[in-house]
Amino acid sequence: MEPSSASRDAGPAVPPVAAVLPAGGSGERLGGATPKQFCAVQGRPLVSYTVRAMERIGWISDIIVVVSPENIETMKSIIEKYGHKGVTVVKGGITRHRSIFNGLKVFAENEFSNHLLQKPEVVIIHDAVRPFVEEDILLKVVVAAKEHGAAGAIRPLVSTVIASAADGCLDHSLERARYRASEMPQAFLFDIIYEAYQQCTDYDLDYGTECLHLALKYCKTNAKLIEGAADLWKVTYKRDLYAAESIIKDNLSQQVCVITDVKEMAAQVGSLLHESLQSQIKVEAMSASLSKNDSHLQNILSGHCYNFVCVNDKKCAIQETQQLVDVLEKSNIALLYPVVLILVHLDVSENISFSIGMEELTRLKKFAREVKKKNILVYGLLIQYK
Amino acid sequence: MEPSSASRDAGPAVPPVAAVLPAGGSGERLGGATPKQFCAVQGRPLVSYTVRAMERIGWISDIIVVVSPENIETMKSIIEKYGHKGVTVVKGGITRHRSIFNGLKVFAENEFSNHLLQKPEVVIIHDAVRPFVEEDILLKVVVAAKEHGAAGAIRPLVSTVIASAADGCLDHSLERARYRASEMPQAFLFDIIYEAYQQCTDYDLDYGTECLHLALKYCKTNAKLIEGAADLWKVTYKRDLYAAESIIKDNLSQQVCVITDVKEMAAQVGSLLHESLQSQIKVEAMSASLSKNDSHLQNILSGHCYNFVCVNDKKCAIQETQQLVDVLEKSNIALLYPVVLILVHLDVSENISFSIGMEELTRLKKFAREVKKKNILVYGLLIQYK
Repeated sequence: MEPSSASRDAGPAVPPVAAVLPAGGSGERLGGATPKQFCAVQGRPLVSYTVRAMERIGWISDIIVVVSPENIETMKSIIEKYGHKGVTVVKGGITRHRSIFNGLKVFAENEFSNHLLQKPEVVIIHDAVRPFVEEDILLKVVVAAKEHGAAGAIRPLVSTVIASAADGCLDHSLERARYRASEMPQAFLFDIIYEAYQQCTDYDLDYGTECLHLALKYCKTNAKLIEGAADLWKVTYKRDLYAAESIIKDNLSQQVCVITDVKEMAAQVGSLLHESLQSQIKVEAMSASLSKNDSHLQNILSGHCYNFVCVNDKKCAIQETQQLVDVLEKSNIALLYPVVLILVHLDVSENISFSIGMEELTRLKKFAREVKKKNILVYGLLIQYK
Repeated sequence: MEPSSASRDAGPAVPPVAAVLPAGGSGERLGGATPKQFCAVQGRPLVSYTVRAMERIGWISDIIVVVSPENIETMKSIIEKYGHKGVTVVKGGITRHRSIFNGLKVFAENEFSNHLLQKPEVVIIHDAVRPFVEEDILLKVVVAAKEHGAAGAIRPLVSTVIASAADGCLDHSLERARYRASEMPQAFLFDIIYEAYQQCTDYDLDYGTECLHLALKYCKTNAKLIEGAADLWKVTYKRDLYAAESIIKDNLSQQVCVITDVKEMAAQVGSLLHESLQSQIKVEAMSASLSKNDSHLQNILSGHCYNFVCVNDKKCAIQETQQLVDVLEKSNIALLYPVVLILVHLDVSENISFSIGMEELTRLKKFAREVKKKNILVYGLLIQYK
């Protein structure tokens, strides 16, 4: 749980960063009994996608999820089920601002956590119901917050905004180009936003919703505004859940996991493949053995990846592949969608003829036929690599 | 094409009404080559759903669809393919306001149409990319426009609206509760909105988007604002197309067409069924013979309805049912989704034993087996009706 400033990517210098995800909403606009952050999208609660979007970023040390008291156990079981790491669950207040304040207190007041988490320099605030946040925009708001004290993502307005008079008639409409919709993520120097929450009134805590406003009102901090992408939108209505599901399905089919064994040659080919593929699709590469207990592999599977390329230089990798098939079967993902498994056999022998024999080929074919019944499609590729 | 004030529903008195649908957008926010109004949703262009939402309302006489010059032929072929009635296609201008103005000119200037359409008292303006508009809200804006001169649907803001300063930092945020998003449909006394468009400047025509604003600025008409439902939203981004598709699929599965033959008893049961079902699902009832040339039936099929209940008091209705099956086959809808056909046979004989013989039952079973191959599922129901 110790925050760390180490970044997995050698990008710009990032200060110690934590993220607070308010997830206490009741989902009344959605029109269902389940709050939207806990609604299943492709069999997985929405909040889990958002947590995953945060935890895959190396420079975010702590993730605080703030939920209403009755959902604490639900949230904890989601964290366990999907293997989320570095997440602290905090009890929310009765409004959004009170929940965020509770989340921040974990870094400053002893009473809110078993152990005080180390105070970050910058804190990200992001809605649990905005699962499609990319590292790019997170980095931009964090860097801008370090410079300006506060920063937030914005989007052009889709509709004209109007003010109504007391009689329910139009008073005036705003010039659309001059205004923006304030979205998430937002980021703050921790001391600024914490100070703002300590200073603000009960009225702010009960009726306000906008963190940037508090930073401006109580700390005279004019947040830097950063244009974000369209996929930052907030899951609000039932139609948004439909849209989220379709986007997740789309992403899944464009996502491939490259698995190589630890030997140099295979690892090298795997990373070449990674490089050349990643301009077109999302690639997760891993140089790991296909052990059932590999937690990184488990993580990828719980991310519902449906395409795998396994690179090896063994004569016949059926045994290793069987292990992957076992893991896939256990995870049940092949029940919903066909899983594609491409076995790449690197032939590094000096012999100019193919080094795979008729017998091995027959075994591979039989194996493929068997696993096809389980909705797992195995293809083989033999590459002479000299 | 003559406007008519007759209403199919005996609701409140509705003045002569026409609708103008601007459909000239380029869809640049969608990120595809096809403008969003022409994107296929369940195999049918989005604009066709919106036109259908308008044409099914008896008190809307004329529907004007305004498209950019290069899409006039596309629009005309959509109207032909889906059998839309009372629709006039008009060439749009280079901006939204110029397109709407062109649409209005059809009722006032000779040059924009082969024949001048009769001027309506009230005109509805509605986006072609808001397909889920219900009669309820259309009636509300029309009635309010007749009283106030102008009216428009509004929705609560989903995000806080903020103003940025010249340096790209937050200037101030608006108090969310005081403002609303201006949505569609809107309605106007024709003379007011036409006057506003005639008076307004080139700057308004080129950079404005809001009709309510023009009515206020040039005709001192404060529009009545009407809270609309969440499904009034505008298809703007790719995710909105996903959402629209899911909503349409959902609607389809909750929609049933009740077909009765013209005899009194069957018609009576059909309308009882209609009444008792309609609190739970959408019911289209029709007292018509199952003729292939029935245009109302064709309309329902092009609306992609997948559930049918056929009520009759004949001994064996295979022949009539075969006609419906032929129409369904021709429309290709059973290729995509299973079609459910429930044959209700009303036994009105005085005999207490079932009046259907073994031979008829065998024929029905054979018939059901045959059409099942075509993805049409036939079920039979025998009701003793005394």
